[in-house]
Amino acid sequence: MAQEDVFKKLVAHCKEYGFVFQSSEIYDGLGAVYDYGQMGVELKNNIKKYWWDSMVLLHENVVGIDSAIFMHPTIWKASGHVDAFNDPLIDNKDSKKRYRADVLIEELLAKYEDKMNKEVEKAAKKFGDSFDEAKFRETNVRVLENQAKWDEIHNRFTKALNDSDLEELRQIIVDYEVVCPISGTRNWTDVRQFNLMFATEMGSTADGALKVYLRPETAQGIFVNFLNVQKTGRMKIPFGIAQIGKAFRNEIVARQFIFRMREFEQMEMQFFVQPGTELEWFAKWKETRLKWHKALGLGDHKYRYHDHEKLAHYANAATDIEFQMPFGFKEVEGIHSRTDFDLSSHQQYSGKKMQYFDPEKGENYIPYVIETSIGVDRMFLSVLAASYCEEEVDGKDGAKESRVVLRIPPALAPVKMAVLPLVKKDGLPELARQIIDDLKFDFNCQYDEKDSIGKRYRRQDAIGTPFCVTIDHQSTEDGTVTIRYRDTMEQDRVKIADLQSIITKKVSMKELFKKLV
Amino acid sequence: MAQEDVFKKLVAHCKEYGFVFQSSEIYDGLGAVYDYGQMGVELKNNIKKYWWDSMVLLHENVVGIDSAIFMHPTIWKASGHVDAFNDPLIDNKDSKKRYRADVLIEELLAKYEDKMNKEVEKAAKKFGDSFDEAKFRETNVRVLENQAKWDEIHNRFTKALNDSDLEELRQIIVDYEVVCPISGTRNWTDVRQFNLMFATEMGSTADGALKVYLRPETAQGIFVNFLNVQKTGRMKIPFGIAQIGKAFRNEIVARQFIFRMREFEQMEMQFFVQPGTELEWFAKWKETRLKWHKALGLGDHKYRYHDHEKLAHYANAATDIEFQMPFGFKEVEGIHSRTDFDLSSHQQYSGKKMQYFDPEKGENYIPYVIETSIGVDRMFLSVLAASYCEEEVDGKDGAKESRVVLRIPPALAPVKMAVLPLVKKDGLPELARQIIDDLKFDFNCQYDEKDSIGKRYRRQDAIGTPFCVTIDHQSTEDGTVTIRYRDTMEQDRVKIADLQSIITKKVSMKELFKKLV
Repeated sequence: MAQEDVFKKLVAHCKEYGFVFQSSEIYDGLGAVYDYGQMGVELKNNIKKYWWDSMVLLHENVVGIDSAIFMHPTIWKASGHVDAFNDPLIDNKDSKKRYRADVLIEELLAKYEDKMNKEVEKAAKKFGDSFDEAKFRETNVRVLENQAKWDEIHNRFTKALNDSDLEELRQIIVDYEVVCPISGTRNWTDVRQFNLMFATEMGSTADGALKVYLRPETAQGIFVNFLNVQKTGRMKIPFGIAQIGKAFRNEIVARQFIFRMREFEQMEMQFFVQPGTELEWFAKWKETRLKWHKALGLGDHKYRYHDHEKLAHYANAATDIEFQMPFGFKEVEGIHSRTDFDLSSHQQYSGKKMQYFDPEKGENYIPYVIETSIGVDRMFLSVLAASYCEEEVDGKDGAKESRVVLRIPPALAPVKMAVLPLVKKDGLPELARQIIDDLKFDFNCQYDEKDSIGKRYRRQDAIGTPFCVTIDHQSTEDGTVTIRYRDTMEQDRVKIADLQSIITKKVSMKELFKKLV
Repeated sequence: MAQEDVFKKLVAHCKEYGFVFQSSEIYDGLGAVYDYGQMGVELKNNIKKYWWDSMVLLHENVVGIDSAIFMHPTIWKASGHVDAFNDPLIDNKDSKKRYRADVLIEELLAKYEDKMNKEVEKAAKKFGDSFDEAKFRETNVRVLENQAKWDEIHNRFTKALNDSDLEELRQIIVDYEVVCPISGTRNWTDVRQFNLMFATEMGSTADGALKVYLRPETAQGIFVNFLNVQKTGRMKIPFGIAQIGKAFRNEIVARQFIFRMREFEQMEMQFFVQPGTELEWFAKWKETRLKWHKALGLGDHKYRYHDHEKLAHYANAATDIEFQMPFGFKEVEGIHSRTDFDLSSHQQYSGKKMQYFDPEKGENYIPYVIETSIGVDRMFLSVLAASYCEEEVDGKDGAKESRVVLRIPPALAPVKMAVLPLVKKDGLPELARQIIDDLKFDFNCQYDEKDSIGKRYRRQDAIGTPFCVTIDHQSTEDGTVTIRYRDTMEQDRVKIADLQSIITKKVSMKELFKKLV
C-alpha cells in the first residue's frame, strides 16, 4: 500500500475509533486544531507519563515545573520572538489568497527537481541495467539546464532568507513566473512579515490593556524560573528542568493532520551546565533521547539523526531526531545546545542577575543550556503511524479475512485489557465484571459483551488493546480464562489469579525504564 | 494564629519551597497568573491523577477527552458567553482607575452591615450576658435606619442585575455617593459591559483573520464532541465524558493568590442522562463528589454544600461544595443540573442534530446533563491550606523548637520518600543511592546528604514528604534502616527489603479508590 494511502487510512481510523476528532467538527471545524477523543487522550497521557517519569524519576538532577501560558510580554522581546518569529506572506490580488512566499519558492524548486527526476526515470527505463545515473545527471543537457536554474534560484533564495530581504523574495516569485494555483495569475502584492504569535489583551484599565502573547514555546517559562527552581530546590549544576505544556503558533500553512497544528503540546527539558562542558552534555542527551525513543520498540530503523548545518543564532550545536512518518522522515524531537543566549538575554532585559554561584569552582557564571524539545502530538502521530497495520488472517471456515490492528507498545496502549464473556448468561458477565473490579485500579480495563467474540477481538485490535480475556463456562468451574495476545493472536489458558501479574509485567512502564538505565 | 496570617505564611511557604511562583517574576510579575514550581507541579499532577482515575478507571461509563483551547467562535454564541459573560465596569475620571460597578455596590452594602454590626457589638459589651441580639436588631433606631438603607440599596441592586440595567447600576453609585478610594471623588463614567473572554485572531487571509476566544470553560469542548464520543465509543446513556484542561477569564478583580486567576485549570465531567432522571443523578453525583473530597482525610468538617437558590438560566438544580479556606468557606467544586440547554443550543446554532437514539426506549432525545466542575488550582490551595501546620516539638537537649509541616495526604505528596545517609562516608551514601535506584520507578524519591539529620527532617517536613529513611552504620551490617513518619515523627527500624511494600501501601492511590467504591 502506498504511504499516502496509509496516512489517509490512519486519519480515518483516528476518527472512527475515538483517537482524534477535528476540533469544532459540528461547526465545520477550525483550521489546524484537533481534539483528542476517548482513546486518544489515554494514549497521549501515557506518552506524557513515559516522558515525564523518564525525566523526573530517572534523573535525580531533573525536576519539573508547570509555568503559565501567559507570560510578561517583554519575555518575548528578550527571546527574539517579537522581532524575528515571522513568516513572509504574499497575496495574490486576483484570488485574494494568501501564501507563504518561502513556500511558493520551495515549491518552485521542487518543480525543477521533478523535471530532472523525470528525465532520469525516462533514461533509466530506456537503458535498463546498464544505466549510470550519476553520469547521466552530469551530462544530459536537459538535466543540466534544470540544475542550473535550480542552483540560481536556490542561491538567490538562501541569500534573501539570510538577509531577510522581502523585496528579493518577491522578485524571485516574479522573475520565475510563479502563478497563483487558484487564479492562475501573477498579480502579486508585496511580501510582508507576519508574526506567528497569537496576541490578546489582558486586564482593563482606563489607560488600556496589556498586550500579551500565547507562548509559542514552553522553554521560556523554564528560563525565567531558572533561579527560583535552582534556589528553592537547592539544585547544583548540572541540573535540568522539565515541563509539559501547550504552545501556540499562528501557522498560515498548517497541514499534515496533527503534525503541524496551531495549538500543540510540547515536552521540553532545559539542562543547565558549566560553560565549556556543553558539547559533551549535548552528545550525552542526543544519545539518551534516541534510546528513549527506541525503547518503545517501534523499529530502530525508523529513526535517524539530522544534524543541523545551519545553526540558529543562539545555538552552537543542534540535531533533530527524525522519525519515518508516512510522509517521509520528519522531526519529532530537537536537541539544541543553546549556549547562554536565553539566560543572558533575560538578564539584560529584566535587569536581574541570572548567574549561578558554583560552589565547586567558587565563582559565578551564567550556565549554558542543552535543550531537548519534543512535540507530544508528533510523538502521538509517530506511535500510531508505526502501529497501524492491516493484515490477512485466518477467518472462519478457513477463509482469509483482513484485520486492522494497532500494535501500540503495551505500556502506551489506551486500554490494557478487555474482558469478554462468551455469552450473556450463566454468570459469565458477572464473573467478567468481578475480574474488572479487581483489576481496574491497576490498569485501564474495558468490558464488552456485544456481538460475536471474533467481532469483539477485531474491535480491541483496532484500538490496540494488548490483552483480551475471554470468560467461558470452564471459567466459572475452574477459575481459568483464555488470554489472547493482540499481535500474535495466540491464546493461553491462565488462572484468573495470575492475570494481574501477567498483564502488569507487560504494560508497566517500569520495564521500559529498565531499558533506559 | 489569625487565619489571615496563616494565609500569608502559606503564600510565602509556597514560594520558598518551590510550590508556586509568581509568573514572570523577574519581569515584576503578571497580574493574577502563577507558575507551579518543582514541588507544586508534582502535587498538581497527583491531584489531577486522583480525579482522572477516579472518574475514568472507577466508572465503566465515564471516558475522557482532551479538546483544544481554541474552538469555533460560534460555540461561544451558542453557549451564551459572547452575549452574557460580562462584568459591568466603571471608571473614575479623576484617578483613571477602573472598577467593577457591582463590586463597588457590594462594598457599599458591606459598609451598612459594618455599621449595624458595630452598634450590636457596642450594645453587647454594654449589656453583657443579658443582651438579646435579635431583639436589639429589631428595635434599635440606628440599626433600623441602616437596615432600611441596606434593604433599599439591595433591592435596587438585585433588580438592576436581573435587568442588566447598567444605567441603574451607575445611578445607585451616584445616589449613595460612592467615592473612588484613590481620588476620593464622585466623578464617574458610564457603566459599560466588559466581556471576560480573551480574544485573539487566527489565521490570516487577504480578507482578514478569524476572531477566536480562549475558552472560558472546558465544558463546551465536551458538548460539541458528545456525539463523536458516544458513537465511536459505543456509549449508552447514562454515560459521562471527563476532561482536564486550561481555561481563561480576563478577571478585572483577580485576587486571593491562586484562588482566582486569569489562567486556570478545570477538571470537568459532563454526565448525559435520560430527561426526567436528572435530579436523581444530580443527587448521586453530589454525594459521590463529596465522598471523593472527604476520602483525602483533610477533615470532614471543612466541607459543606451550598445549594443555589438562584439558578442560572440553563440549570434546574445546582450546588457548590465549599471548603474552609483561610479566607472563609469557598467554592472548590460546582455540581449543576444543566438540563438540555447546551446540547439544544448547539443543535440550533450548528444545524446538526444532537440527539441520542435510546435503544431501550426506542426513541430519539436530547439528553439532560449533570456537570461536576472543579478548579485544579483551588483544589491545590485547599490541600495546602489544610496541610499547613506550625507546631512546637521537642528539640535538642529537651528544648522546644517549632517546625512547619505540610500534612499532605501521602498519595498526593510531591516526594514520597527521602533517603538520608547519616554521614557522607563509610558506604552510607552508596547504600542510600542503591535504595533509591531500586525504588525510584515506584514513587518519587529524594536523596539528601547535606546538613544535620534534624535539619534534613525539617526540610522534608516543609515539603510534606511522608517518609524519611535514614541510613546508618547498622544498615550496612544488617540491612535495616530507620523509617521516620512525618506526622507523628515516630521512627521504626525496618528491613530495606520491606520499604517498597510499606511505603507503596501508604502512598498508593488504590487505597483512596477503595474508599470510593
